[in-house]
Amino acid sequence: MRILSGIQPSGSLHLGNYFGMMKKMIEYQEQQELFCFIANYHAMTSLSDGKALARGTIEAAANFLALGMDPEKSIFWVQSDLPEVQELTWVLSNFTPMGLLERCHSYKDKVARGVHPNHGLFAYPVLMTADILLFQSERVPVGKDQKQHLEVARDIAIKFNNEYGEVFTVPEAEIDEQVATVPGIDGQKMSKSYGNAIDLFLEEKALRKQVMRIVTDPTPVEEPKDPDKCNVFQIYRLFLDKEQEATLRRRYTAGGLAYGEVKQELFETIRDFFAPYAERRKELLANPEGIRAILAQGAEKARYAGLKTLRKVRKKTGLSY
Amino acid sequence: MRILSGIQPSGSLHLGNYFGMMKKMIEYQEQQELFCFIANYHAMTSLSDGKALARGTIEAAANFLALGMDPEKSIFWVQSDLPEVQELTWVLSNFTPMGLLERCHSYKDKVARGVHPNHGLFAYPVLMTADILLFQSERVPVGKDQKQHLEVARDIAIKFNNEYGEVFTVPEAEIDEQVATVPGIDGQKMSKSYGNAIDLFLEEKALRKQVMRIVTDPTPVEEPKDPDKCNVFQIYRLFLDKEQEATLRRRYTAGGLAYGEVKQELFETIRDFFAPYAERRKELLANPEGIRAILAQGAEKARYAGLKTLRKVRKKTGLSY
Repeated sequence: MRILSGIQPSGSLHLGNYFGMMKKMIEYQEQQELFCFIANYHAMTSLSDGKALARGTIEAAANFLALGMDPEKSIFWVQSDLPEVQELTWVLSNFTPMGLLERCHSYKDKVARGVHPNHGLFAYPVLMTADILLFQSERVPVGKDQKQHLEVARDIAIKFNNEYGEVFTVPEAEIDEQVATVPGIDGQKMSKSYGNAIDLFLEEKALRKQVMRIVTDPTPVEEPKDPDKCNVFQIYRLFLDKEQEATLRRRYTAGGLAYGEVKQELFETIRDFFAPYAERRKELLANPEGIRAILAQGAEKARYAGLKTLRKVRKKTGLSY
Repeated sequence: MRILSGIQPSGSLHLGNYFGMMKKMIEYQEQQELFCFIANYHAMTSLSDGKALARGTIEAAANFLALGMDPEKSIFWVQSDLPEVQELTWVLSNFTPMGLLERCHSYKDKVARGVHPNHGLFAYPVLMTADILLFQSERVPVGKDQKQHLEVARDIAIKFNNEYGEVFTVPEAEIDEQVATVPGIDGQKMSKSYGNAIDLFLEEKALRKQVMRIVTDPTPVEEPKDPDKCNVFQIYRLFLDKEQEATLRRRYTAGGLAYGEVKQELFETIRDFFAPYAERRKELLANPEGIRAILAQGAEKARYAGLKTLRKVRKKTGLSY
């Protein structure tokens, strides 16, 4: 099964990114054919700081590689190292009814929130479609917020295939309902933009501070507590196996559990869990040329797969003359 | 002065194309730095017949080369042989307020005429902007209908430069008021879509038929006629120097001029004027590989110029990391 996933080139990563997406990707590469790219073109819709984008791209690569992305097993590259995707975007634009884009919630929501949109934001789903179709991706893991964009991708693929024959694989969404359930320190979905995240690669002191800020209720220490209503528990369980989770659950319901104590444990757990990854990340970032070389190799592999599709598209549409 | 011009890849050419645009381009190459491309990406907004697009591209190249485009003097290429322009299109999309595109008349008019638009049609002015800015074009000859799109290009260039420094030359429109005055056989502007064109490379019989169909008034032969109100005269004068035009004018005002007679003269004039070009065109089309080789060389030259700009853009925006 060919699976495609894109990640935003943001230097800082939080637990929601890891447990919601990256962990699954890293597991996928054992059994699936994983195409994973750093979506720096997409990032331009919201970021116009060139230096931040370049730095974020290297850091995102370091993050993923440190966490276990294996460039021997998977195809891992930076989106803009394959500018060919933009040619496909143009071709597909001519198979994209305006109404399809005008109905996209994520665009409409941003406009409704008072954002003065640029065309990039509006055209984003077409680029996302090109990302998917260029590699004949069969499955695309998406959060609920991206579900509609995958419908757009399917519609465009079908429309093109109707005109020119079966050129594109029509992709399937893989919507993991669990993905959305990594809660932030306030219990809402963990998100950088909500300011409720616990970051992955922080210095001890800063990490402890974030964990200590997790919102808890004022139940006194001695009373029993409901783990299912506790943000600390909900985050902690991500690191626990069934048995460990059951043990912790019993400590909650038995009474006598101090939130400060369990927060300290959680802090240590997070720190120890990510310590080896943080070490590896530091090594990688000390040698950015090494990272660039890995990404360049990934881009070559991605290009090989992508050009197969693009050559067909150019021939069918008459761009090859 | 660096001048950019794009032509649609349509096999058939009419007098309006020639006198309105191509003749001027061919003259420009003697004194200006001319960048001229066959706009096959643009054509996709209205054409979804791959074979027709490929054939039209070769024929458009043959037309232009036959009429005097000199690949030694100018840079002449096919738009899709430089897919890099699509990457710039994406970058610029993020500097293009939606309102700028929503206000474009040519888009609004098509929607008003009941066309169900695709995104390609909407995004067209951004691609046109990328065409212009990629080559640091200083001047762009446009018809009145394209004037607004050039304003869009200027706005986008200024917006990008404000953010990232003086990366792009802000282009100037060159609006030739005469351009619109090549009349068709019915006196309206000559246009393929109006069905009032006189084509350039027709067999004698078909050409004669088109000329004979020029609409004239029912003034009897013996009476004086007003050349300024006569479609035959308005077309004929394109082929005449001042003196010849004055002579023809006198024949009109003197009376005794039969429209059939002057049409026959016009037919012969058109035929003889284009005969050597038609011959050359035939030779070129007999060897499409030769045309492709010329275009490939042109694309290399265009790429050299375009990559200078694109490298700057990639560095400034952080796409190079």
